[in-house]
Formats: sequence, structure tokens, C-alpha cells
Amino acid sequence: MTSQNEPGKHMSAEVSAQPAIFAGLVERRAEIAEVAEQVRRRKPRFVLLAARGSSDHAALYAKYLTEVLLELPAGLVSPSTTTLYGAQPDLTDVLVVSVSQSGGSPDLLEVTESARRRGALTVAVTNTADSPLNQAAELSVDIGAGVELAVAATKTYSATLLALYLLIDAVRGGDGEHVRNIGELAQATLDGSVDAVAEAVRRYRFVERVITTGRGYSSATAAEAALKLAETSYLAARAYSGADLLHGPVAAVDAETAVLAVTSLGKGGAAMKDVLDVVHQRGADVLAVGSAASDAAAALRIQVAESAEEVAPILEVLPVQRLALGLSLARGGDPDAPRGLKKVTKTL
Amino acid sequence: MTSQNEPGKHMSAEVSAQPAIFAGLVERRAEIAEVAEQVRRRKPRFVLLAARGSSDHAALYAKYLTEVLLELPAGLVSPSTTTLYGAQPDLTDVLVVSVSQSGGSPDLLEVTESARRRGALTVAVTNTADSPLNQAAELSVDIGAGVELAVAATKTYSATLLALYLLIDAVRGGDGEHVRNIGELAQATLDGSVDAVAEAVRRYRFVERVITTGRGYSSATAAEAALKLAETSYLAARAYSGADLLHGPVAAVDAETAVLAVTSLGKGGAAMKDVLDVVHQRGADVLAVGSAASDAAAALRIQVAESAEEVAPILEVLPVQRLALGLSLARGGDPDAPRGLKKVTKTL
Repeated sequence: MTSQNEPGKHMSAEVSAQPAIFAGLVERRAEIAEVAEQVRRRKPRFVLLAARGSSDHAALYAKYLTEVLLELPAGLVSPSTTTLYGAQPDLTDVLVVSVSQSGGSPDLLEVTESARRRGALTVAVTNTADSPLNQAAELSVDIGAGVELAVAATKTYSATLLALYLLIDAVRGGDGEHVRNIGELAQATLDGSVDAVAEAVRRYRFVERVITTGRGYSSATAAEAALKLAETSYLAARAYSGADLLHGPVAAVDAETAVLAVTSLGKGGAAMKDVLDVVHQRGADVLAVGSAASDAAAALRIQVAESAEEVAPILEVLPVQRLALGLSLARGGDPDAPRGLKKVTKTL
Repeated sequence: MTSQNEPGKHMSAEVSAQPAIFAGLVERRAEIAEVAEQVRRRKPRFVLLAARGSSDHAALYAKYLTEVLLELPAGLVSPSTTTLYGAQPDLTDVLVVSVSQSGGSPDLLEVTESARRRGALTVAVTNTADSPLNQAAELSVDIGAGVELAVAATKTYSATLLALYLLIDAVRGGDGEHVRNIGELAQATLDGSVDAVAEAVRRYRFVERVITTGRGYSSATAAEAALKLAETSYLAARAYSGADLLHGPVAAVDAETAVLAVTSLGKGGAAMKDVLDVVHQRGADVLAVGSAASDAAAALRIQVAESAEEVAPILEVLPVQRLALGLSLARGGDPDAPRGLKKVTKTL
């Protein structure tokens, strides 16, 4: 699992593999639509999403999709209410989607088993089709991203987003039109951002404090960006929704702070304008990432291919992964095996 | 609103006022129980909590209470799904609790108005009984903490926790027994932690990176601690649930990192043991705060009065506020009016 000869080779390969993985997943849309059909038939009234770590950010994305596209109220599960406190809620009419790359987290397994016993329709979204989580859930979606060797999740994160989009879009009767060419858009994003990412790596070589921010769907990208930078480059990185940032934490933003702002075309990106103006006035160094980056008040811009707003997070994260990889290598780390990290955490 | 002559005098007074505010709120339990009775009659099946900033952490606490004590599935509202994307979910059988000190946030107002139109039972929990949010919601709870002059929320945060506890406890038919003497416990906690807080201020005078962590109910305290330190002392502070911390961000924990770990008596605190062991092995400087702090593997301990686990967050935050105040002053700041902060943020 380590890569002492060539640090970051696994992460680099896994980042580059994403366009093909996306294309393959879109080709398997019919499989996912079958799961969606069973969800439709059960007419859930409330959706709960259970996850940990990077998958938690995928779950946040799915929460936005659920609320906006399905117009169903949704929440993120706090696993400890089940695993520590033994809560036994009535989950009739509730859809519980458990998201886990490995399908092996004991706490998610317990949450899923418990939810199924309490009447919920349970769906596992994993990268391990024969995992305990798949067996525990009534329905499963296999993201099919292949084995991930780097400890920092990249392709499994983005493929999970795409799988969740395909699932939720199909539940509402969609035909996946916004992701039909997502593989090509991903390739264009990776190819088109090489120079800007390299410049960002040079600029942020010595940064210690990073705040990431986004609004709407792109909140998930901001959260994932902070985690990826923290776990591969050991940065003090923290994500805020653009709205929350103005509520208080902006006090901690100054000329020593790098702000990674996700701004894509659409309503979320448009709502970031005020946030960026305030942050810019405070002297922070802003790195704008997204399909609307070119319009942002920023020191650096990383352009992402244009897409429908609800699928932009699948693309926005790609150059962010490359940035985390590049920064880790520039700082002498090995992003394939960051210190202290294991692939599956056995939280109980 | 500023306090140029005596930095921090408002925040200091507001922190000290909490025991009396708690006692006053407990005396008004019958008022809150009336609201609870109306909630009971409507038999909500799902609960949504809407908030921003510090109130978001109060909402997180209420989410745990809802799931464990009421055994109802719950979620935190992402306001932008309403304000930006115009989602119009069917909220029949849904209880929406909107938490806002000022009751003046335009986005929470819009969320609450929209939820009420869509069939939800709406309850506003504010410190401003005649606020627009109170008028928009069908039912209201007044936390009665008095005007808060410091920009950083202290007494309104803790009083909101207590009000939410009294509300949810009454919904399940409780009589508030665990908070009957919460004012005295708060006073004992403040009085008993003076020396330990002063020592922590000296020790963390020059710290730049802080990770806060807790599990279960105390996750809310960890989140609020990070926000308070970030907004008053401009620290790079980030909160992780104990479970998530082991999943990845622990890679960023080293001897340069101060870890504020919330450990109280009960299941959440017990589950922190593994987390603290790992963090301690990585050489981090651990500050344990809580009623189980004395048992923690830590460099410093701040003891909190013993209480039932579900009300511990109301007490745990008190010495953390004093720590934020002390650090801000030691670093030459004015916690009453941190740079760049306003009391109500008009997020749209």
C-alpha cells in the first residue's frame, strides 16, 4: 500500500482514472435506475444519509440533491445516536442511504441494520459489491471505481457523487441527461487545469492556514477540499459554507489565510460573490475553483468545465485533488500513505 | 457596542451571567412545556432544525436530543435549498425548529415561512420575543437571556441549549429533572475552573492550530469551541467528531497541534478514550474539558460539574468561553468586537 519509490503514484493514477470511471458508470445507468425504480415504488417521505469521512461530503451532496430535485426533507445521520445511545426510532416511510467506499465501517453497518429493522428502506452505495454493508442493506448501488490504493479517497469520492446523482435523478424520473458526457467534461477539466494547479502548488507551498468555502451544491466540494488538504498536506484547513463564513469565522481571515472558494455557474456560485468581496477586502489570498472562476475576485483561478449546476461538484473536486497531491509532494509528503491514516476506520 | 476602554468586558459579564440565566429559564419551564404540549398533540414524525453560526451547534445538540430522547429521525436544514434553489418539499408531519439568537436572519425567516406554508409545524427559538422569526413561526420559545452586547455569542448559546433541552424533554413527557439545579452546576463549573482556564490561557498563548473533538452530545461543544476560538482569537481551529477524526484528519495532528477534547461522564465521553489515546500517541498537546476530564490522557484538564450526559453540553461550554475570552485578551484582541464581525449577518 505504501509507495516509497515513487510517492503519490497511486493517488496520481487514481485521479487520472476518473474520466474513464465516470463514463463507465454512466453506461451502467440502467442498473442504478432499477434500484431507483424500487425506491420510487416505496414513496419515501424522508431521507437519511449515513456516512463517515469523505463519504460524509458525498452524503452532503446527496442531501442537496434530495431536497432540491426530489423535494423531500433530508438529514445526515449521526451514527452515535444508534451506536452509542441505542436510539430506536420508527423509520416507516424513511429511505436510509448508507455511503461507504469500503462498505466495511462497523458503525455504518450497525446504523443500516438497525434502520432496516425499524422499517426504513435501506440502500448501500459502496465500491465493494460484496461488502457487509451491501449485505445488510435491502438495495445496493456499486460505484465500480475499482480498488483504491492511495489512502486519500479520490476516484471513490467522485464516483460516489456520480452514483448518487444517477440514483436520485432516476428516482425523480430523469434520464441522466446532465451527466451524459461527464467523462469528457472530467477529462477536459483535468487537461485544462494542469498549469493553474501547478501555479497554485507553487503559490501555496508554504501556506499553513486554508479556509475553503462554497454555497449550495458546492458546499460539498468545499468540505472535501478541506479534508483532502488536511489529510495529505497536514494543513490547518477548514470548510465553511459561504453563508456561515460571514457569520463569524471571517474574523480569522487575514492576509496569512488562503481561501479556496468554489464558484461555479449557477445559483450557488452567484451567491458566492458577496462572500468573495468581503474575503478579498480582508486581504486574504483567494483561489477560485469552478466553472465561474474566471469572474471571481481572486489571486488565482482554476477553471472547471461548464456543466449543469447540480453535477458541478463531480467536476470541481478534480483539480482540488491534483492540488492536494501536488502540495503534498512539494512539501515532502507521500499522499499515498499520509502519516497516521488507515483505509478503513473501525469506529464503534 | 465596542469597548475600547476595557476589552472583553461585555463577554466577561455575559459569561458570568449564565448561572442566573439558567436558573431563570428553568423557572419558566411551564411556559416551554405549553409549547411542548402543542408539539406533542401534532405528533411530528420528522424533525428539521434550521440555524446559522453558533445556533447551528445548538441545533446539532437538539438533533441528538431529538434522535435519542424522542426517537424521531432528524436533520439540519440547508437553508440554501430553499433560499437559492426554491425547493418546495411536502412538510406534512414535520416539525421545523428555527434557532436564532436575534430572530433576524433573513434566510432563516424565509426557511420558516416556506416550511409553514408547506405544512410543517414551526417553532422559533430566539432571544428576541418580538422578532420577525417569532412572528413567522406558529409557536415560539423565548430563551430570555437578555441583550447580548459582545459579538461572540456566549449566554445566548448556552441558554438556547437549555431551552431546547427543556422543550424536547417536555415533548417526551419529562419534567426537567436533569436541569433542576443547572444554575448551581454552572456556577460550580465557572468557579471551579478559574485556575485551570488561566493555566490553559498561558499554555496556548502562542498556539496557532487547534483541533476540537467530542462524541455524541458533546460533538456540539466541540463545534462551538472551534468557532469561538476562531472568531475571538483568530486561531485556525477546526472541530471533528471523535469518530471522523480517526478517519483521516488525524494525519494533521502532531506536536504543533493543540487538541481540545470534550470528555464527560457517559457514553460519549467513554467513546472518546480511543480517540485520545491515538491523538496522545501522535504527540499532540491535549486539553481535556468535561466531567470526565480527570480520567483523560491529557496535558491539561478543565473539570466540569457532573450532570446527566444529555445536559453536559450546557455546562461544558462555560470554561471554553472563558478560555476563548482569556486567549483573545492575552493575544491583544477584543473579544467583544472581533475584527470583521457583526451581530446579525444578512445572508440571502
